[in-house]
This record gives sequence, structure tokens and C-alpha cells, in this order.
Amino acid sequence: MKLNDLQHTQWMLARRAEKMNPSVIREILKVTERPGIISFAGGLPSPKTFPISEFAAACDKVLREDGQAALQYAASEGYAPLREMVAAGLPWKVDPAQVLITTGSQQGLDLVAKVLIDAGSRILVETPTYLGALQAFTPMEPEVVSVASDEGGIDIEDLADKACACESGGTVNTARFLYLLPNFQNPTGRTLAEERRAALSRRAAELGLPIVEDNPYGDLWFDQPPPLPLTARNPEGCLYLGSFSKVLAPGLRLGFLVAPKALYPKLLQAKQAADLHSPGFNQRMIAEVMKDGFLQRHVPTIRALYKSQRDAMLAALQKEMAGIDVQWNTPDGGMFLWARLPQGMSAIDLLPRAVDKGVAFVPGAAFYADRADARTLRLSFVTASVEQINTGVAALAAAIREQQKG
Amino acid sequence: MKLNDLQHTQWMLARRAEKMNPSVIREILKVTERPGIISFAGGLPSPKTFPISEFAAACDKVLREDGQAALQYAASEGYAPLREMVAAGLPWKVDPAQVLITTGSQQGLDLVAKVLIDAGSRILVETPTYLGALQAFTPMEPEVVSVASDEGGIDIEDLADKACACESGGTVNTARFLYLLPNFQNPTGRTLAEERRAALSRRAAELGLPIVEDNPYGDLWFDQPPPLPLTARNPEGCLYLGSFSKVLAPGLRLGFLVAPKALYPKLLQAKQAADLHSPGFNQRMIAEVMKDGFLQRHVPTIRALYKSQRDAMLAALQKEMAGIDVQWNTPDGGMFLWARLPQGMSAIDLLPRAVDKGVAFVPGAAFYADRADARTLRLSFVTASVEQINTGVAALAAAIREQQKG
Repeated sequence: MKLNDLQHTQWMLARRAEKMNPSVIREILKVTERPGIISFAGGLPSPKTFPISEFAAACDKVLREDGQAALQYAASEGYAPLREMVAAGLPWKVDPAQVLITTGSQQGLDLVAKVLIDAGSRILVETPTYLGALQAFTPMEPEVVSVASDEGGIDIEDLADKACACESGGTVNTARFLYLLPNFQNPTGRTLAEERRAALSRRAAELGLPIVEDNPYGDLWFDQPPPLPLTARNPEGCLYLGSFSKVLAPGLRLGFLVAPKALYPKLLQAKQAADLHSPGFNQRMIAEVMKDGFLQRHVPTIRALYKSQRDAMLAALQKEMAGIDVQWNTPDGGMFLWARLPQGMSAIDLLPRAVDKGVAFVPGAAFYADRADARTLRLSFVTASVEQINTGVAALAAAIREQQKG
Repeated sequence: MKLNDLQHTQWMLARRAEKMNPSVIREILKVTERPGIISFAGGLPSPKTFPISEFAAACDKVLREDGQAALQYAASEGYAPLREMVAAGLPWKVDPAQVLITTGSQQGLDLVAKVLIDAGSRILVETPTYLGALQAFTPMEPEVVSVASDEGGIDIEDLADKACACESGGTVNTARFLYLLPNFQNPTGRTLAEERRAALSRRAAELGLPIVEDNPYGDLWFDQPPPLPLTARNPEGCLYLGSFSKVLAPGLRLGFLVAPKALYPKLLQAKQAADLHSPGFNQRMIAEVMKDGFLQRHVPTIRALYKSQRDAMLAALQKEMAGIDVQWNTPDGGMFLWARLPQGMSAIDLLPRAVDKGVAFVPGAAFYADRADARTLRLSFVTASVEQINTGVAALAAAIREQQKG
């Protein structure tokens, strides 16, 4: 593709660049930034939960006691004390040498794509799945295959059917990995229960199918912790992604991955080529804040807040959607609730009317690798206040009623 | 490639991952981290130049006045006031809308690779060139072609010869871009003079050849500023990369790129998929430190320090290398000096002996895309103190003398 010939200069795009598209969510978020719009759209943690004074104290201490090292180039693997804290905090035996600090867990997805995906590689995802993962994988040109999923998560028989495909010419295309968010999934809020999790772990191992387990929301449970991660059940068969964005703050852009020993060196080389290392200053800030068990005191306050907000949204839906055939689920944690409009209605078509009434959401179609369910939508219950949730859900119901009248 | 079959799990590496290699420099740096080794190896800015108290004041102010926004998710383009400062600080008319804040300029190289390189794409580099760029480009599997270069930089006739190749079968492979560090280049320290720069700019435009101009060191001039960037001469034909690492501190991992309007949207999408955005907290810290013209007061102190260190290294080389046929250049700025050992000697072979004597450097061979000159080595003059420079150069000379005796 020839982009321009100003001064005769011919910029040619790589084939993968032609497949990149602006994020639907980001485009929607621009609309929702209009003053007065109540947004259930973004996946933004409540800024009330950011421990600002702890960060301020940490910045001061890090710069005073370790400023030159914190501001210098550093190892691509990450800051050793932080890697140790990450390893110690996970519910299976993790060697800190397997922990790689990333620039948000989004970067973990980018590294996974670079190291594991060739053009045409089959990769399996849930139906629906995290849009940012699709965006990270797409540039490496995989064949993305949606595995059937229900309200309890992935369908294991369909997984087995899709793990391997015989292609024309008799070549066998084995899936490179299954990408999965088992806890309070983005976008649906659903969780893979113990029984299905155990069966999935067993079946994936039988199939020889690697799992990329993305767990940014696992700590945000409301009544009881989710079951053990898949990686804990088969550490050499899984690659685990974690994040500090939801338990501390996203604006520091720090996450981590835990990789099998066989993969770690390649992920590390990809990391080094991508940005040399994640900011050492930020890594020290987070290590400093975390070091005396701060998360054990802090995360319960986030859980309590988000649970009360989920409850407010459930109550508002119950009240405002009376008499309309709208369905929604009850997530056990995380930030999102998944809803489904009456038959024949499209969430994409509904959105402009909803925005006119002062409320925004993300149409579920954005999260499907293929064959989207146009009736679905994602509602975040963590950014808006309870008062805004009440007003916003009422506005949404009004928009649906109007849309139904046509 | 089947990596393991623990529990039957079959991790398959992408083809590009097999081409990734550990950085030679990082491996060498591990050796040089041994206590007592004087290192001319790393490209580490002098930590004495990091404005720690200014950063501390900025952290405090940002968290106090704008903490929630600084710690929240943010726009992929970067923090608007910082983008405006970057645009205003460049010596040609730049619209802030063309500025993309990156996680170090290394990420800029990664984004360039993703957006502009297909497998087999021809890209042109200097001889030698920045190793980190080769590492960023390699995963996208280009054909990297070295353009002949002398002490004044790239040979324009050779560039014209290599800008386009007729391949077997009659297809024409036009170079996607020329990657160039015109100022105080890493690794050689050399600078493209005005006359050659003007000729290169003209010739590239005639050839329709895009230029990726990497300028992390341009502000670190000693006696006079370098000539105008290539991008200033043809903004739509060039993509410009800059960094805060050398004028403020590398540990915040912030850089930027300035892209032609035709390319910006694709680079932005690649950025979003790579890490969503660079840390908003760090962007605000840097904007806060920079806002009252701080760089105009601060950068001259770095220039003066590095110039005195360059002079110390030149004097030490003059004294210690007497009677051995070692050549070196006199960089007009930046961090590196380029040297060449006597005929028949290899810098890679010399390194262990030098380390035994307590001094380290990077063998020049690491920086060549092909046909390395084994006699070359890169010496950083900015990390070691003047006293260490004197001791280290004496140790290096002793190692060379021993090596000559065989």
C-alpha cells in the first residue's frame, strides 16, 4: 500500500499494519468523555481506590534512598525485590527467576504474540474475549478461533474439537495456545468454577494444549476467592499474566508474567527489544508500597466498594428493567456485568440513543473474535458512583423502551 | 520447534522467536557488574546528572494536585501538555498531534518495525549501527542491508545503489526505510556534517526513500549544536525518534516519536496494542520538571560534564596508547568514542584479558548488521569518573600490549 508520495517519499505499510484497527472501545470512550455522560463503558478502576498518599511516601523514599539506581537503566527482567514479592504472593510455588515485569499486562500479551504466534497460527479464545488481547495478537496474524462458551465459561468439548484442525492438503494445524480469563472475565464478569476448571486443566494437558491465563481481576472477589489458577495446576503448561493496575493503579503501567522455564528466555529477549525494561522508578514505588503487606489491608477496601457498586447496579437493573426482556448476570467479583437486550435489538444501534439520554456502555460485539451476539453489552459498575448508577440505569432503560417502540 | 512435553504440553515458538538472541551487550554488562571492574561498556548516562530533587518536587506536586488522573488509564497518544512541549522544543514546525509518547525510544523502534517491516522487507542501516535497533527490527524478519559508511557517516552513492534491488524473478525490492542516527551516533560517536546531511536529504527524496531518524544524543553537543535534523528538511518523508533518557533520566522510560500524518494512526494503534499507553504519572513528572525551561539550565551541565570526560579519555588514550597502533576518533558530543585495535587483533578476543585487568568495553562487532570489523570497540566516556578513565585506559593499553605479544 502506497500511502503518499509527498516529495516522492514512499511509505509502505507492513501487511500486519493494514489489519490493525482503532479500538472500538477507545472511540466510544471519546464520546463518553463528553461532560454529563454517565459512563458504564470504560474499564477504569475507581480512582477513589488509588493509594495516593502511600505512593507519595514511596516516591519520596525511593528518590531519597535509591534515586540514582531508580532513575538509571536496569535489567530487562525487572526489579529483583518486586519479582520476589510477585512470586511469593502467588498461590503455587514460583521461582522469582520465572517472573518478568511488564509494562502493564497488555505488554505481556504483546510478548506472548511475538514469541508464540506465526502468521496463520491457530489460537483459541473464549466467546466473547478481552478486546485488548485480540488487538495484541492480531498484528502477528493468527487464525483466531472462538471456543463456544456459556455463562460458566468455556465449553470443554468444543475446545477439544477446535484444538487441532486438519487443513486442506492434509496438514494439521495445532492450536498454539488457549487464551483465557478465568476470573470475573472481561467482558462478561463470569468465572470458571472449580469443577470446570479442573476438567479444563486435565483436558488441555491431554491435548498438549498450552494455556495463556490472564488474571488481572482475580483479587477483586466479593464473597469468596475464586478457585486456584490453571497455572497452579500445571505450571509448565501455562503462561500466567498478572497486573498491578486493578489492585494499586493503572497509571504506573506495571504488570508481570510468569513463564515456564522453556519460554522465559525468548520472552525476555522480546521484552528487551520492545522497551529495554519497565520503568525502574515505578517498580520501586510499587515494591515500596507493597512491602509491609499493604495489599492485605488495601484490597479488601476495593472489594467492599466494588461489591456495593455491583449490588447497586443489580438493584437498579431489577427496578428499571421491569417489564422489558433484558437479561443480566451476577458477577462474583471484578468490574463488569454482562447484559443482553430483548430479541431483535442491537446494542450498537442502541448506543447513540443511550448517549443522547446521558449514559454509555460498550456493545458486546466488540469482544467477539467472530459471530458476535449483537444483543449483548458490557456494563462497568466500578467507575460511576451509586447515584450515577441509579440515574444511568434508568436512562438506559428509557433508551431501550424507546428503541423497542422503534 | 517443540520445546518440551512436560504433561504433554507442546509450546511451539514462532519463527521470529528463533531469530531472537540475547543482547551481546547485556551479557557483557553482566560481567562488568563484577565489583572493581571499570566499565566503558554500558551506554549508561552519568547518574550524577539525574535531577533527583526536581523529580521529588514534581512527584509530590503531581500526586497532590492531579493524583487520580496521573494514576488512571490514559490516552495512547500521551499526556497532551508533554506532547505540546515536545513539539515546541523541536527545531521545525511540529503539530503536537503528530507526537506520540513512547515507553523509551526503544519502543519507538518496536512500533516502527511492526508498522513498516514485512518478512523479507529490505531496510538500510549505517555501518555499524545501534544494536537495539537491530534487535527491535529483527523479530519482523527484515533483510537488513548495511550501507557503507566512513568517519563522516553514510556513503550516499552506496545508499543509492542499495535503496532498491532487483531480485531473482525480476521483482524489485525497494527499501522500506533508511535507519540513521545522525548525531554522535551509537556506537561510533560520529556526526553527519551539514553538507552530507543536505545531500542525503536530497538524495533520499529523489529515491523516494523514507528515513527513520533516531536522535537520542542530539542535545549532548560539546562545542556547537549539530546541523538541523533530516526530518526538519522533509517532515513527511521522515519519522523522528527522541528520548528523555539522556537529558533527564532513563529509568522513567519515556521517549517520543514524530510521525508523518500518513503513518501516525497506524503507529498509534500499534502503541495501544503494545502497552495501552506510557505511564501517565511519569509523563506528568517530566512535564512538570520541564515546564519552566529547566532543560535550558540543566542540559548545559550535562554537556560540560561529558565534554570534560571525553577530554579525559582522549588524553588518557594519547598517553597510554603511545607506541601501539590504536586509532580512535574525537566525537563532538554524545557518550561514545570509537576505537580500532592494531591489525590482526580482535576486540572480542581482547575482552577477557581486559576484564582480567579490570576494564570492560563493547567489541564493535556487536553493532554490525553484516561483515563486522573485528578490530573495533566502543568506549563510553560518561559513566566512569575521570580517575577511573585514567586507570581504565591504562589497563586497556596493558591488555593490548600483552595481546600483541600473544
